[in-house]
Amino acid sequence: MTKGRPESVPDGPFRRPRYSGGMTVRFSSRVDISAPNPIAAAEAKARAQGVTLGKLNDSNPTRHGLAPAEVPGEYTAEPRGPHAAREALARFLGGVDPDSLYLLSSTSQAYSWLIKLLCDAGDAVLAPKPGYPLIESIARLECVDTIEYQLQFDGSWYIDTAAIEELLYSPEGDRIRALVLINPNNPTGSYVKPEERATLVRLCRERGIAIIADEVFYDYALEPFDGNARLAGETGALTFALDGFSKMLAAPHAKVGWIRVSGPEDDVREAQRRLDVIADDYLPMSDIIADRLPGLLSVAPRQTAHVRDRVRANLATLHTLLARDEHGLVDVLRAEGGWNVLLRVPAVIDENELVLRLIGTRRLTGQPGYFFDMTTNGYLALSLLPEADEFRANVTAVLDTVAAMLDLG
Amino acid sequence: MTKGRPESVPDGPFRRPRYSGGMTVRFSSRVDISAPNPIAAAEAKARAQGVTLGKLNDSNPTRHGLAPAEVPGEYTAEPRGPHAAREALARFLGGVDPDSLYLLSSTSQAYSWLIKLLCDAGDAVLAPKPGYPLIESIARLECVDTIEYQLQFDGSWYIDTAAIEELLYSPEGDRIRALVLINPNNPTGSYVKPEERATLVRLCRERGIAIIADEVFYDYALEPFDGNARLAGETGALTFALDGFSKMLAAPHAKVGWIRVSGPEDDVREAQRRLDVIADDYLPMSDIIADRLPGLLSVAPRQTAHVRDRVRANLATLHTLLARDEHGLVDVLRAEGGWNVLLRVPAVIDENELVLRLIGTRRLTGQPGYFFDMTTNGYLALSLLPEADEFRANVTAVLDTVAAMLDLG
Ligand SMILES: Cc1ncc(COP(=O)(O)O)c(C=O)c1O
Ligand SMILES: Cc1ncc(COP(=O)(O)O)c(C=O)c1O
Repeated sequence: MTKGRPESVPDGPFRRPRYSGGMTVRFSSRVDISAPNPIAAAEAKARAQGVTLGKLNDSNPTRHGLAPAEVPGEYTAEPRGPHAAREALARFLGGVDPDSLYLLSSTSQAYSWLIKLLCDAGDAVLAPKPGYPLIESIARLECVDTIEYQLQFDGSWYIDTAAIEELLYSPEGDRIRALVLINPNNPTGSYVKPEERATLVRLCRERGIAIIADEVFYDYALEPFDGNARLAGETGALTFALDGFSKMLAAPHAKVGWIRVSGPEDDVREAQRRLDVIADDYLPMSDIIADRLPGLLSVAPRQTAHVRDRVRANLATLHTLLARDEHGLVDVLRAEGGWNVLLRVPAVIDENELVLRLIGTRRLTGQPGYFFDMTTNGYLALSLLPEADEFRANVTAVLDTVAAMLDLG
Repeated sequence: MTKGRPESVPDGPFRRPRYSGGMTVRFSSRVDISAPNPIAAAEAKARAQGVTLGKLNDSNPTRHGLAPAEVPGEYTAEPRGPHAAREALARFLGGVDPDSLYLLSSTSQAYSWLIKLLCDAGDAVLAPKPGYPLIESIARLECVDTIEYQLQFDGSWYIDTAAIEELLYSPEGDRIRALVLINPNNPTGSYVKPEERATLVRLCRERGIAIIADEVFYDYALEPFDGNARLAGETGALTFALDGFSKMLAAPHAKVGWIRVSGPEDDVREAQRRLDVIADDYLPMSDIIADRLPGLLSVAPRQTAHVRDRVRANLATLHTLLARDEHGLVDVLRAEGGWNVLLRVPAVIDENELVLRLIGTRRLTGQPGYFFDMTTNGYLALSLLPEADEFRANVTAVLDTVAAMLDLG
C-alpha cells in the first residue's frame, strides 16, 4: 500500500496536471468531447457576439408555431433544464448559482448520469453498507462495480474512514472513481459527521475522486445534532449533491430531482462540460413539470414539516411501545435522521423466518437486515411514515411475532 | 463467412435453445435477474393469491396520506408506467396490449434502456447511415459501439440488406446485438420497404438479434406509398418500436415517449422480465404527465394533421422554387416522409464552406451531409417545419448563396 501524495500525476487520457495539491478528477471516455467542427465553432462565435442565427434544419416544432395549445411555450432544450425552473430552484436553495444545477426526473437518473460521467466499464464506485440497494443495481446497468465500505455501529453509526483510505490507496483503488455518501444514510439514519467529512474530502481530493452526496433525507433530522451540514456546495473536492421532491415534498410520483455541482474550479468546469453532453442527449425535464416547479417549491417547507412531525411522533411512539413491552426483546438502533429505523431482534431468531412468519400470520411483509448488507442477523427495517394506528399495529405485530417465535407469546 | 442456419445454439450464459428455427435473443449481463429471495417469493405467492400485504418498511409517503394536495393520488411505482395511462395509450394505438408498452420520457431514454437490455460493454448496434446522429452518442454512453449500415440512393433510398447479411454472419457479427431501423429515416425520409423488412426480420430471427424500430416520423408521409407499415407489433423477430409526443404532437417539451414490445413469445417474455428490472430502477414517468396523457392523446390526430399539412405545403413550395430557379443548381432528394429533406448542391461547392457563408452573410446555420455521414459532398438538410415566409426565405438564401459561390449571383 503506497500512501501519501503521489509525486507525479499519471498521464492517462483524461488526467490533467494541477498546480495545487491533490489530483484532478479523471472522467470516463464515454462522453464525446471532441473538438467542435467548423460550423459548430462559427455558431458558438456568433452566439458569443450576441448574434442569433436561424437554422435551416430547425426541427423544433415549437419554434414554428406548431406546439399544441395544451402544452404551450417554446421548447428551449437546455441541457441543465429550463432556465426559469433552475432559477426558482436556485432561489429556493438559498441563492446558489442556477448554472450549477441539473434538473432531471429522479436521483436514480442522477446516479446513472454521474456514473457515466465518471466511470468506464469495469471501474467502480464506493458505496455505504448498510445502504441503499438501488445503487448497486444502477451501477451494474452502467457496467460499473460497487465496492462497499462499512458503516460501524457502536451506539451510533460511524464511517470507517481508515478503511476507505486503505482501499483508495490499494491497487483496487485505481478503478474507484466516485465515493457515494448518503447524508443521512438509509436505513441507518446516520449523518456524515464533520470529522468524517473533512477526512473524506481530503482523500477524494488527493486521489482525484468525485463525491456523490445523496441528501434526499437531509431535512428529516430525528435528533438534535451538532455541526452536521449538507455536502451540497462543498468546495474541497468535486461534489455532486443529489436531492429532489421524492422526500422533500413526499412526492415520489412528481419525478423531480436535481444535481448540484461544486468543488475546485477546474474540476467543476471540466465536469460540467461533460455532464452537459450527457444531459443534452437525454433532456429529461418536461416543460409540463418545469412550469409547476415554482409552485411546488413553495409548498416544500410545509410538506417537509408535516412529514417530519409524522416521523418524529412515530419514533416517540416506538420508544414508548418498546419500553412498555413486557418481554423487552426488541430494541431500535439510534437513528439520527430519515424515514426508517432498524429494529434489533434477538439474534437467535432468523430474520428471514421472522418476515416469512409476519407474511403468513399478519399479512405484513418487511425487509430484514441482509437486504441492506447488515453483517449480522437480527435486524428489521421499520418505516416511520404510517399513520399512528397503522404504525402502532405494525410495531405490535413485530413484538408479538418475536415473542411467539421464542414461545413467549 | 459462414452462412445459413446455425446447426447448434452456442451456449453462452443467456442463450437458450428454442424449438423452432432461428436463435433466441441474447440479453446483456447488466440486468440482475437472480432468483428471488424467500421473502420476495412469499410476497409473489401472496400477490398471486390476491392477498394484499402491508409493508413494515413502506416508505412510499403517498400511501400514508402524506402526498401534497398539489400532486394528489397514490404513487403506484409501476415499472412500465401508470396503468391508466398505458391503457389510454393502448386504446389510442388501436387496441394493443397495455402490458406490451413502457412509458418513458423520450426515445433517447428508450434507446438507452434497450441498449442496456441487449448489449454488454464492447457489444455493438447496427444503425443507418445517413442517420440520426444521437444514436452513436447514446450507445457510446453505454460503452457500446455503433456500426453503420449504408442506405443507398438511386432515385430513392434503399437499405443494402445484402451488406447487413454479410455483416451479421461475419466474425464482427457476434457482437452485434440490435438492428436500429428508423421508419422513416431522418434525414433521408425513407421508409423501410416491405421486401427489406421481410429480409431483415428473417436475418434478425436467424441471428438472435433484436430490432429497435424508431417510428417517430411514421405518420408524416410526404408521398403516397404502397405496402409500407409500422414495424410496431412485428411478430417475426423481437421488436421494440419507439414513438412519442415529440413528433406525433409536435411537443418535444412534453417529454413523453414509449416502447412497444412484440415478437416471438419466449423472446418477448424474457425481454420484458429484464426490461422491467431496468424500468423499475428508473421509474421515469411522472404522475403529473401521466394524468394528462389521455387529454394529450385526444389532440394527437389534429396535431399530426396540422404539422403534416405544413410539411407537405412547404415541400410543394420547395419544388416550385427549385423549378423556377434560373440557375437550376440545386435539387432535392426524393423524401418519402418526415420533417426534413436533403438538398443537393453542386459537388464543386464545399458543403462546410456553404454553411459558413450562410452564417456569415445570412445569419443562417445548417447541417451539411457529413453531419449525417453522407458519403459524398454536396448535401444540406432543410427543415420543412417553418411558416411559409420563413421557409421561402430559407430556400432563397440557399439558392442565392450557391449562385454567389459559383460567381453566378
Ligand atoms: C438514499 C435514497 N436516495 C434516493 C431515493 C429516491 O430518490 P428518487 O425517487 O429521486 O429516485 C431513496 C428512496 O428511497 C433513497 O432511500
Ligand atoms: C429519428 C429520431 N428519433 C427520435 C427523435 C426524438 O425523439 P425524443 O424527443 O423522443 O427523444 C428524433 C428527433 O429529431 C429523431 O430524428
